[in-house]
Amino acid sequence: MPTPLYSSDSFHRACRGEPVRQTPIWLMRQAGRYMAEYRALREHHPILEMMKNPECAADVTLQPVNAFDVDAAIIFADILTLLEPMGLDLEFIPGRGPVFHNPIQCGEDVRRLASVRPETDLAFTLEAIRITRERLDGRIPLIGFSGAPFTLACYAIQGGGSKDFDDVRGWMYRNPAAFTDLMDRLTEAVIAYLLAQIDAGAQALQLFDSWAGSLSQSEYARRAAPYTRRIFEALEGAVPTIHFSANGGHLLEQIADMPVSVIGVDWRPDPGQVLNRLGRDTVVQGNLDPALLLSSDEAMLEGMKQVLEGFSPAKGHIFNLGHGVIKTTPPERVKLLVDSVHACTAHAPSPGAERAES
Amino acid sequence: MPTPLYSSDSFHRACRGEPVRQTPIWLMRQAGRYMAEYRALREHHPILEMMKNPECAADVTLQPVNAFDVDAAIIFADILTLLEPMGLDLEFIPGRGPVFHNPIQCGEDVRRLASVRPETDLAFTLEAIRITRERLDGRIPLIGFSGAPFTLACYAIQGGGSKDFDDVRGWMYRNPAAFTDLMDRLTEAVIAYLLAQIDAGAQALQLFDSWAGSLSQSEYARRAAPYTRRIFEALEGAVPTIHFSANGGHLLEQIADMPVSVIGVDWRPDPGQVLNRLGRDTVVQGNLDPALLLSSDEAMLEGMKQVLEGFSPAKGHIFNLGHGVIKTTPPERVKLLVDSVHACTAHAPSPGAERAES
Repeated sequence: MPTPLYSSDSFHRACRGEPVRQTPIWLMRQAGRYMAEYRALREHHPILEMMKNPECAADVTLQPVNAFDVDAAIIFADILTLLEPMGLDLEFIPGRGPVFHNPIQCGEDVRRLASVRPETDLAFTLEAIRITRERLDGRIPLIGFSGAPFTLACYAIQGGGSKDFDDVRGWMYRNPAAFTDLMDRLTEAVIAYLLAQIDAGAQALQLFDSWAGSLSQSEYARRAAPYTRRIFEALEGAVPTIHFSANGGHLLEQIADMPVSVIGVDWRPDPGQVLNRLGRDTVVQGNLDPALLLSSDEAMLEGMKQVLEGFSPAKGHIFNLGHGVIKTTPPERVKLLVDSVHACTAHAPSPGAERAES
Repeated sequence: MPTPLYSSDSFHRACRGEPVRQTPIWLMRQAGRYMAEYRALREHHPILEMMKNPECAADVTLQPVNAFDVDAAIIFADILTLLEPMGLDLEFIPGRGPVFHNPIQCGEDVRRLASVRPETDLAFTLEAIRITRERLDGRIPLIGFSGAPFTLACYAIQGGGSKDFDDVRGWMYRNPAAFTDLMDRLTEAVIAYLLAQIDAGAQALQLFDSWAGSLSQSEYARRAAPYTRRIFEALEGAVPTIHFSANGGHLLEQIADMPVSVIGVDWRPDPGQVLNRLGRDTVVQGNLDPALLLSSDEAMLEGMKQVLEGFSPAKGHIFNLGHGVIKTTPPERVKLLVDSVHACTAHAPSPGAERAES
């Protein structure tokens, strides 16, 4: 790949903890049902079909980029698509979400899982990345992503969503060897998939371990962290990496101990306390409550200021929500948020700038 | 009420941080579908009917007391029944859980809520407490409970369960005055209900703020903590009080700052780190992962030992799960857990004993 030249390089500078002209912002699930453009496409195409059509996936990826002044795009895909070529039969059922019709039930099911060859098995997302890079033409960087092994394992075993994935933890405790085998296979698949995304043009990678927070600190350390670490080690030095987990406040120290560029934080923990725990020499992403975008402009902007101030002592801060955009979010409020983050931080000395002078 | 004389007073001693002969244990949702006796009753009676029949509620309350050597009983009731006499039309729909057919949508709906007169409106639970106390005959203490105002507000506004109650937070941010009004009314109702439970014979009270963890630290401080505090202030000195919140690890310091006897901890945080944060001068309840009861005896007992050891420096520890008993739990494993907690702590110097000598 040629060295990228961005009009706005604040996202990458923040990832590296370098001074920025203004705090970069993008939003998890920034392409989604809250946008009329997205709903118009969804009317005619099931979600999985949209993801598997590279032109369509690129279109959707660019919808929020065209509508808002975000500092990064994220490829339109799903954290679970990786499981399909491994042999799990995925369907998105309206109103119910992702369902796997043949969930993993025993060690034999794990051993039957196929290896993933991303260039053929997940060619649609790689092609979508190539098309999106071309269309972005260097304006802003493109983020690729995958679900992390533990979260993939949750869905593979449960066969769909769950409130707490209690039964998955039960399975994990009952079948420690099969679970380890599953995590090993998922880790290899995720590494191959993410490296292929870099080859296709992804300029940063986010690992979504959405359900890691359902593990206790000690079980996370034993059963999930080693695999997540292996992924970040495999990606080290290639592109900036971001970790995100919902409800993972109790895991932040363990995650920050990995070779990851940016620590994503959900909306629950106080930014000041996050920095007290992790140290200021940390690059963080987050953490506005997405429900604040359902409120008033004033309440949202007050929340935004708290996040900006709270994270201002950090080595770097990428503004984001503490979870995905909620589907009832008014798009004009997303626009106000993006513009306000830029306006509020444009003239303030950036955290990185202070560091650079000292 | 006459002063209670317990055969086993370890629960109350632990609540007060006094030395105990062995660590007391009870389990959240210890009366429930994992027990054949319970399922046999449920076959013939909808759950709400079981709760509203005092004899039946007492029967169910005593099922785990008769089956296991637990150190406390908890009255069979629901955290949400309080909302019904306030004017919310509650139904338990099989496979879906509690549903309110007329959720709160505006400030006018809040103003229309009725005051609760527990002695008439919730007479069934108060009577169940009286009957259970008689039948327990001083063997072990009986715990009463209620949902906390924020959690009650979540269900009242959402009209049922939700993954994260995002829409409730959106409503709360949009309608701050109506939300405050709602929290005020719920707080008065909870106080009246819990005081009535004491009058009826409840010897300890647990406040379930199951969904407090969906609030950020700053929003919890502003919008939920003052109401929870008001409840514990109203109960101070009457009976021991316990706070429990799932996913509330980020709120522990704020909760420990209230006049509450015992801090419940879900299975996520490491016991040692909980004590580092709150100090050893704390009485804690928890925090075994309930999914460990779905595993092997060995794995469960290893987890149990970690919890016992981790919390051993605390002023007091009431052993419990970090959440309710899962319905697929084998009852024989509950028995093994209860007996093992007693056996493992019977001869060790108790945390309280150490303190008493120093």
